[in-house]
Amino acid sequence: MKIFLAQQNYIIGDFEHNLSKIKEATNKAIEQGGDLIVFSELSICGYPPRDFLEFNDFINRCESAIEELLPLSKNIGIIVGVPERNPQVEGKDLFNSGLLLHEGEIKGSARKTLLPTYDIFDEYRYFEPAFDWKCIDFKGLKLAITICEDIWNLNTGSENMIYNPLYRTTPMDELMKEQPDLMINLSASPFDYTHAEDRMAMVKANVAKYKIPMLYCNGVGSQTEVIFDGGSLVFDKNANLIEEGKYFEEDLIEVNLTKDGGFTETIKQSSHDLPSEELTPPNYEPNLNIDRIYHALVMGIRDYFNKLGFKKATLGASGGVDSALTQALAVAALGKENVHAILMPSQFSSDHSVSDAEQLSINLGNKYDTIAIEPIYKSFMAQLEPHFKDLAFNVAEENIQARSRGNLLMAMANKFGYILLNTSNKSELAVGYGTLYGDMAGGISVIGDIYKMQAYKLCEYINDQAGKEIIPLNIITKAPSAELRPDQKDSDSLPDYLDLDTILYQYIELRKGPKEIIALGYDETLVNRILKMVNRNEYKRNQFCPIIRVSFKSFGVGRRLPIVGKYLS
Amino acid sequence: MKIFLAQQNYIIGDFEHNLSKIKEATNKAIEQGGDLIVFSELSICGYPPRDFLEFNDFINRCESAIEELLPLSKNIGIIVGVPERNPQVEGKDLFNSGLLLHEGEIKGSARKTLLPTYDIFDEYRYFEPAFDWKCIDFKGLKLAITICEDIWNLNTGSENMIYNPLYRTTPMDELMKEQPDLMINLSASPFDYTHAEDRMAMVKANVAKYKIPMLYCNGVGSQTEVIFDGGSLVFDKNANLIEEGKYFEEDLIEVNLTKDGGFTETIKQSSHDLPSEELTPPNYEPNLNIDRIYHALVMGIRDYFNKLGFKKATLGASGGVDSALTQALAVAALGKENVHAILMPSQFSSDHSVSDAEQLSINLGNKYDTIAIEPIYKSFMAQLEPHFKDLAFNVAEENIQARSRGNLLMAMANKFGYILLNTSNKSELAVGYGTLYGDMAGGISVIGDIYKMQAYKLCEYINDQAGKEIIPLNIITKAPSAELRPDQKDSDSLPDYLDLDTILYQYIELRKGPKEIIALGYDETLVNRILKMVNRNEYKRNQFCPIIRVSFKSFGVGRRLPIVGKYLS
Repeated sequence: MKIFLAQQNYIIGDFEHNLSKIKEATNKAIEQGGDLIVFSELSICGYPPRDFLEFNDFINRCESAIEELLPLSKNIGIIVGVPERNPQVEGKDLFNSGLLLHEGEIKGSARKTLLPTYDIFDEYRYFEPAFDWKCIDFKGLKLAITICEDIWNLNTGSENMIYNPLYRTTPMDELMKEQPDLMINLSASPFDYTHAEDRMAMVKANVAKYKIPMLYCNGVGSQTEVIFDGGSLVFDKNANLIEEGKYFEEDLIEVNLTKDGGFTETIKQSSHDLPSEELTPPNYEPNLNIDRIYHALVMGIRDYFNKLGFKKATLGASGGVDSALTQALAVAALGKENVHAILMPSQFSSDHSVSDAEQLSINLGNKYDTIAIEPIYKSFMAQLEPHFKDLAFNVAEENIQARSRGNLLMAMANKFGYILLNTSNKSELAVGYGTLYGDMAGGISVIGDIYKMQAYKLCEYINDQAGKEIIPLNIITKAPSAELRPDQKDSDSLPDYLDLDTILYQYIELRKGPKEIIALGYDETLVNRILKMVNRNEYKRNQFCPIIRVSFKSFGVGRRLPIVGKYLS
Repeated sequence: MKIFLAQQNYIIGDFEHNLSKIKEATNKAIEQGGDLIVFSELSICGYPPRDFLEFNDFINRCESAIEELLPLSKNIGIIVGVPERNPQVEGKDLFNSGLLLHEGEIKGSARKTLLPTYDIFDEYRYFEPAFDWKCIDFKGLKLAITICEDIWNLNTGSENMIYNPLYRTTPMDELMKEQPDLMINLSASPFDYTHAEDRMAMVKANVAKYKIPMLYCNGVGSQTEVIFDGGSLVFDKNANLIEEGKYFEEDLIEVNLTKDGGFTETIKQSSHDLPSEELTPPNYEPNLNIDRIYHALVMGIRDYFNKLGFKKATLGASGGVDSALTQALAVAALGKENVHAILMPSQFSSDHSVSDAEQLSINLGNKYDTIAIEPIYKSFMAQLEPHFKDLAFNVAEENIQARSRGNLLMAMANKFGYILLNTSNKSELAVGYGTLYGDMAGGISVIGDIYKMQAYKLCEYINDQAGKEIIPLNIITKAPSAELRPDQKDSDSLPDYLDLDTILYQYIELRKGPKEIIALGYDETLVNRILKMVNRNEYKRNQFCPIIRVSFKSFGVGRRLPIVGKYLS
């Protein structure tokens, strides 16, 4: 039996676009004599559709898309993901389903049982979980179809249950009662830089437990902040890897299943195959999987622009490491002809800031311009003089500079149809070291999930890959500064970045409390000060743009904290 | 039996503050010979604690607070709401529980079964639902304790099930098997301007079904965007209202339960007692419950400042209806001595804008200052001239003005320790008629859940209540304008506000699709244009500050839509 897995990049709510991609892959599969083609979770509408699911009209359009796809299923089985209405009065209105279309009809539906509600996920907001389970017959085979999270509660007995037992059900245990021939999983499994091994291990563990082949189809592409990295998988019944889809790219995978649960293809070795004990780094390691992070960020920028119908980006080029990294990523994602860097020196800017920023644009080959902010700053101060009088220079004046830059960048973006890329990193977002409506402005945050030390590693990676100095070494080696007052250095108000990042990682990613972090050997005053800064600046992050998510705990939709609250603050 | 219901205003994560309030009420109850005191849902940590619940340290502090409260329970029963660890391996880590403390011990725990995940709620993210149910004995009575949503799935049989059957369980049906004497419900039931009747009807319907008395204790106070309006309720077993807590204020309610399920207090009539068919307005009615909205907004501002430890507000006073309303609400919430209005006229401002804004501050008695933006705007344009050259004046130049105002207001806020109040209304937020980092700046949005026509009604209400012209009539009667270009009027780019509001309400509150709205008699082109504007401006609202929520569907945490998506856009 010839089976295809279509790993595709959808646009949420763009039914025409999604359906045309699905049809195109299906037609290719038909041409090549395919029996069955599998698509990813909620492929019809794109994942995550969020509150669009609450619109009856949106669900009608999903149903219409299925109707339109049915004729193509005359000679091939098509398994697609789609929200499906709950026919019962009780429970929520929808299921998150995989439908088998064949012979022009809907032959069966597999409904998702395990609905994730952690981090970025809100599936219980919309979907009723399945309460009964049935395999679906197809050409003499019994298919055990599950949706994404359904295979992530592998109840292997209380002794060696390897994953967090959030759920009380293991859908595959139920489906196995019918002795299926094949597992098929439709996924939309988000990328983080430690997740590929997790995924590989979990899919493999399912095959090891149930001893039938597995076709695992993941989506690909970026949806605002959430990255889907592909890497669809095929395992034979002996838990041998048969195919591994491309990462960060669309793919159409073909496999040929034999009658004994094997495949005609040869066995492969995956680069992501690590023992499960090594999966999640217990401590902050700035160098870990930098190559994956690079590719995820490039895809994140590219898809954000493509899906919004924009081509060109602008950003403020300060001569610092954050804006340099953002600019290099933007050039990689959009092309040097589509990036316009703006240098906005002030009276507090050092000479090297300007020359470093210029050199970067020269190295990258993108357009750049310089707009001085001193006259603007002075005109603000002149108007404010009757009110500020002789009050000392403080954060108010610093913020006026940052917001004047924000205004200039947005003016250029508005005038020329650019999107402004934000250049803030995760360390500074964490402690609130940034100005709302100033350097915190932008349509998308490129490196807001990258700690400062990771930013340095990414710069080095870019230079290494190029085999030359793309990002000027001086940008990487000089002491970081916001340059908003004379001789300012980040280290005046922030601790050493490796300490800061490590403490932040313990609090944000690992959710340790102050006692636990202090027990790691950090100074009590420092830890309390940092956690306080994190919690007090929730109000700033609440107004921040979407952040391309590369870690397993990013600021934004996956981390939801009260703005008014007094815990550790 | 003498029972107290403590309707209190907590600070999320401020255990010291919350515990001292709980102890104070308990001591009062003890002094007055009370047998039992009931607090609201998650009273120990405040509701909603959101992702703080994922921190082990936070749960430890909840447990310590219970330990600290126990000694006080020697001579009185205390029922408090607290997150409780799940002792089982399977399922999520926590329950949302009500504990009965008595004789210095934890006598029992009632765990929440129905976990809301719609609108602002995310409870399934944190909590495991209860799967078994037990009454708790107290001084010879069997108590059926439930938590908030637990009483909102009143399974009265499929014919007349009056509420949306989201859930498959009715916890009270299970508890009734033990023939309890008394229902007690711990709530954190958010306000919206149509909700009080809903709540009254639902509590009453429970009593009517189960025929035992009900003590319903709700929280009060504002938590960033979410308002809790109090209105705790006591019904006797014959569904007579015995006590109704104050609205928008703390309260300590005392009732005396007799042995036959009655109370010694006399029966009351509630102002919120309406037949359920009238609960949710099918159409937009700008005048509906304006008085409640007014009190909710005032409490929303006051609590936001109090809980953050700020006293003083600033805002941009344009002479328009939105900023006038915001300013009047701020003065009501914070006092005239704590509001500093800033007038920022430009070359496009009309004379009446300035004089109307001045008159408003004079009427309200708050401080005001004028800072002209023309010199600042000119200095931006001078710096941008080499880039903009002779390109026509467009939205870029308009936004420069709005953002210069935003910068000035934030400078004043930063310099003097004010919080900037945002003045955008729901109609303009919906269609994106506002400038990010400009008039969309601010710490909290006061009227972001108020449609334009409701804003007029609120202004009239304020003048009516004062019995004089607080908000100058000219502000209410003149044609709305952003005044960002010569002779600009809102009606140049937006439809009539009553049409706009009505269409928006159908789409946002009622979640109707374009076909359904057009079927109401609205022009197809207009409807499609408006829905497109709403969906295309999700990116702006995503960076907006928290909005005080007064409707049953506000922008913000309760409405979650993709930023990059193509549905109706």
